Amino acid sequence: MHAYQELERRFARLSHLEDALGILGWDKDAMMPIGAAPGRTDQIAALSVIHHDMLTAPDMPELLHRAAEERDDDPDDDARAWRKANLREMRRIHAHASAVPADLVEAASRAASSCEVAWRQARADSDFEGLLPLLSEVLRTQKLVGQAKGQALGLSVYDALLDQYDPGNGTDLIDPVFDRLGRELPGLIAEVIEHQKRRPAPLPLPGPFEVGTQEALGRTLMGVAGFDWTRGRLDVSTHPFCGGASSDVRITTRYDENDATGALMGVLHETGHALYEQGRPERWLSQPVGRARGMSLHESQSLLIEMQACRGDAFLGFLAPMLAAAFGGGDGAAWSAGNLRRTVQTVEPGTIRVDADEVTYPAHVLLRYRLERAMLDGDLALRDLPGAFNDGLREMLGVEVPDDRRGCLQDIHWPSGAWGYFPTYTLGAMIAAQLFDAARRAIVGLDDRLAAGDFTGLLSWLRREVHERASLHDSATLVTLATGRPLDAEVFTTHLRRRYLS
Amino acid sequence: MHAYQELERRFARLSHLEDALGILGWDKDAMMPIGAAPGRTDQIAALSVIHHDMLTAPDMPELLHRAAEERDDDPDDDARAWRKANLREMRRIHAHASAVPADLVEAASRAASSCEVAWRQARADSDFEGLLPLLSEVLRTQKLVGQAKGQALGLSVYDALLDQYDPGNGTDLIDPVFDRLGRELPGLIAEVIEHQKRRPAPLPLPGPFEVGTQEALGRTLMGVAGFDWTRGRLDVSTHPFCGGASSDVRITTRYDENDATGALMGVLHETGHALYEQGRPERWLSQPVGRARGMSLHESQSLLIEMQACRGDAFLGFLAPMLAAAFGGGDGAAWSAGNLRRTVQTVEPGTIRVDADEVTYPAHVLLRYRLERAMLDGDLALRDLPGAFNDGLREMLGVEVPDDRRGCLQDIHWPSGAWGYFPTYTLGAMIAAQLFDAARRAIVGLDDRLAAGDFTGLLSWLRREVHERASLHDSATLVTLATGRPLDAEVFTTHLRRRYLS
Repeated sequence: MHAYQELERRFARLSHLEDALGILGWDKDAMMPIGAAPGRTDQIAALSVIHHDMLTAPDMPELLHRAAEERDDDPDDDARAWRKANLREMRRIHAHASAVPADLVEAASRAASSCEVAWRQARADSDFEGLLPLLSEVLRTQKLVGQAKGQALGLSVYDALLDQYDPGNGTDLIDPVFDRLGRELPGLIAEVIEHQKRRPAPLPLPGPFEVGTQEALGRTLMGVAGFDWTRGRLDVSTHPFCGGASSDVRITTRYDENDATGALMGVLHETGHALYEQGRPERWLSQPVGRARGMSLHESQSLLIEMQACRGDAFLGFLAPMLAAAFGGGDGAAWSAGNLRRTVQTVEPGTIRVDADEVTYPAHVLLRYRLERAMLDGDLALRDLPGAFNDGLREMLGVEVPDDRRGCLQDIHWPSGAWGYFPTYTLGAMIAAQLFDAARRAIVGLDDRLAAGDFTGLLSWLRREVHERASLHDSATLVTLATGRPLDAEVFTTHLRRRYLS
Repeated sequence: MHAYQELERRFARLSHLEDALGILGWDKDAMMPIGAAPGRTDQIAALSVIHHDMLTAPDMPELLHRAAEERDDDPDDDARAWRKANLREMRRIHAHASAVPADLVEAASRAASSCEVAWRQARADSDFEGLLPLLSEVLRTQKLVGQAKGQALGLSVYDALLDQYDPGNGTDLIDPVFDRLGRELPGLIAEVIEHQKRRPAPLPLPGPFEVGTQEALGRTLMGVAGFDWTRGRLDVSTHPFCGGASSDVRITTRYDENDATGALMGVLHETGHALYEQGRPERWLSQPVGRARGMSLHESQSLLIEMQACRGDAFLGFLAPMLAAAFGGGDGAAWSAGNLRRTVQTVEPGTIRVDADEVTYPAHVLLRYRLERAMLDGDLALRDLPGAFNDGLREMLGVEVPDDRRGCLQDIHWPSGAWGYFPTYTLGAMIAAQLFDAARRAIVGLDDRLAAGDFTGLLSWLRREVHERASLHDSATLVTLATGRPLDAEVFTTHLRRRYLS
């Protein structure tokens, strides 16, 4: 076990570096003054190169090979299984890293850091032209990364990039599911909107909603859902995210004093991510097998908390009087549970992905999935992105994009180098529906408990079935173990029909 | 110049690592949730080891040697001088680092990180006994570090530790100055207190002073003093400090709603440090020669802004109406400039160093200097520190320490591994007095300008005479260049007599 032990030691150090990068990344978006951007780019690039050099050290292939040959005589089946899975993950991570030469790693990291910073201003100015040179460099370097990894792993450029975020899932799994959803979605959306018209329109919630009160309420609900404040924070950033480090999970949101529920639901979404991170097994926290399984499963946790639990009728019955107490003034009817349900379950096609309801959201993802594949394949020039984006959104949702700020510049993913990431959102929505369906069968009176603000049963189930399994299995196996059957997109559409058409 | 260029490249990367460590350190004290402490210790230790390994790479001595032999044909005298000084600093930094084996570096870093975290609770609980095991480990590792460096540099353990913070200054310089000050101080303090009794006692400022208002005023005054908000932040921590990274200077303070001026003066103190950091030359920002010269000079900048400028009569005339507008209620007389002067120029022996006035402050430093030397020399057992500390403070200032929280546990320095740091505070006070004296001669109407809240003249002078020189010269040469004569402790006592006895 000498080689394996040495690998555990090295991967622990790599994990410390990743944690440091996680804090630097959080700080960049939540705390850093603007003039510090070039320096931060240098710091992140330096740590990334060091990380890459350690991971691709010349003796690493030999160590991985020797560790695979070593006998593990531990009588504890469980411990052996975790170590075996840990070694499998080490090999996978190493294969990804060693495929890419160090100078390309640095170039890609620098391109992404610079472009992400510039994007903040470009988005504010709706200046796609101005961002084009930096964004081209991101696309160029990401494509090179995808080619290098694809060659090493026997995957297409796109599958290789996707594999970074969601190991094991590829376009062969996604395409049929997304094609089917793409065919079903327009009709479903139309049906839902028709059905919605026959209900009373929701009364507007009487604002403005003081930001400090929104924040206090968000913090209360994070605690209700089970967030551990001794190992995390809530702050503000332009684009909400869940980041930070092991045992230090930092989520962000953005507040709008004319919107009572947007930041709140955003906080609950990120709390779902955070609960996954906080629930990873302590023993394996700094090892590859102790990581969250992948981005689809990660998104399933945020959507399970936000969409399945917190936008569901049961929890909204708990939330409505809290909102009324926090913001309530004259109009009692606006703060009724029924009106709150109609408000947060409103389906309305729009231009902004992060503001989209769960019925139209997949359309935003399907479009981006198609566009980023086309750009990486060379079938769509980056210069033509705004037009293609606007055409696509018109086609799929019937909405007009007024400017690039609310169009192709709205998301942080492309400027920050996260190409191949988008499909995980909708895979996550499907997994969330299937997990929640299974939880509802497993936990007696789950809806009643959520209606009383009691998340303990749900959280225990998620801890056992998802969080504590970390990367022990691949994500398909995990879904099957947790729900008793393989991923089935039907559960998602059934959920949509039940919530929005009954 | 090949070897020199390679060294610049390597030291730039080391600087990026130091900047990353600076942000992680700031975060630890200003942002991090308590449960993240063990992970942060791992992250900081990992980066410190990587930094140390890069700095002590096997080919480094050869590179430094070759760079010293290379001819620099640049016709620009100035550029040559900077490069030469840069190489000198590289050699000095390398000598410090290569003296200490990597496992000792890691042990010392881990001991300090763990002890510093535990100290926060131990201080709150006044629990010296509980902290003793961790603090012993810090002392043990610091002593080993001092021995290793002392052997390499031909210095005593204490001088070797001091040399880390204040290159070139040693006990041979400090002892005569401190001995003299130690003899003069008790009499001077007695004289000042006697003199103070003959003035009207200051009227109490009518509180409470809302923390948000204190913060807003502090931010305004940081701007007045010349702080660049695009390259820095102000936050809250238990122990105020100036940290962060190049082009990202982060200062902290702590607020007390019963104290109108404490946090404000603390903010101005840290602003002095920050102005030094923000004024380092852009061209050399990531190189050793571009660093601030040392901690005595650093402290001179904070004390020049706080003690020399902002607690002086001229600036207090500017500040009084601002305070009155922010906090003023019924009592106009309390907010007069005269009363504010009497308030912030009050001399009163007390137990807390960071709350001490500038007349009694050196007594706190002299005591700690004596005690830490005795502990490192083995003449004082760590277990006996509380008694020795309390005896010393009684002897020097006539005050009784009620508990260790307000005694030997009050400072972060010993728990965090900063042994040999304390004397730089009082050296800094002396340099500050001499620099301000020179600035007053050089800048026409300096007092009138400060009385109008105009720091531009003073800041330009400091930029030129101190900040932009960075580490081009040693600190004695810098003081002589800036003030026209070598450091003379007399200027400090003259300042004290003028302010407190006239």
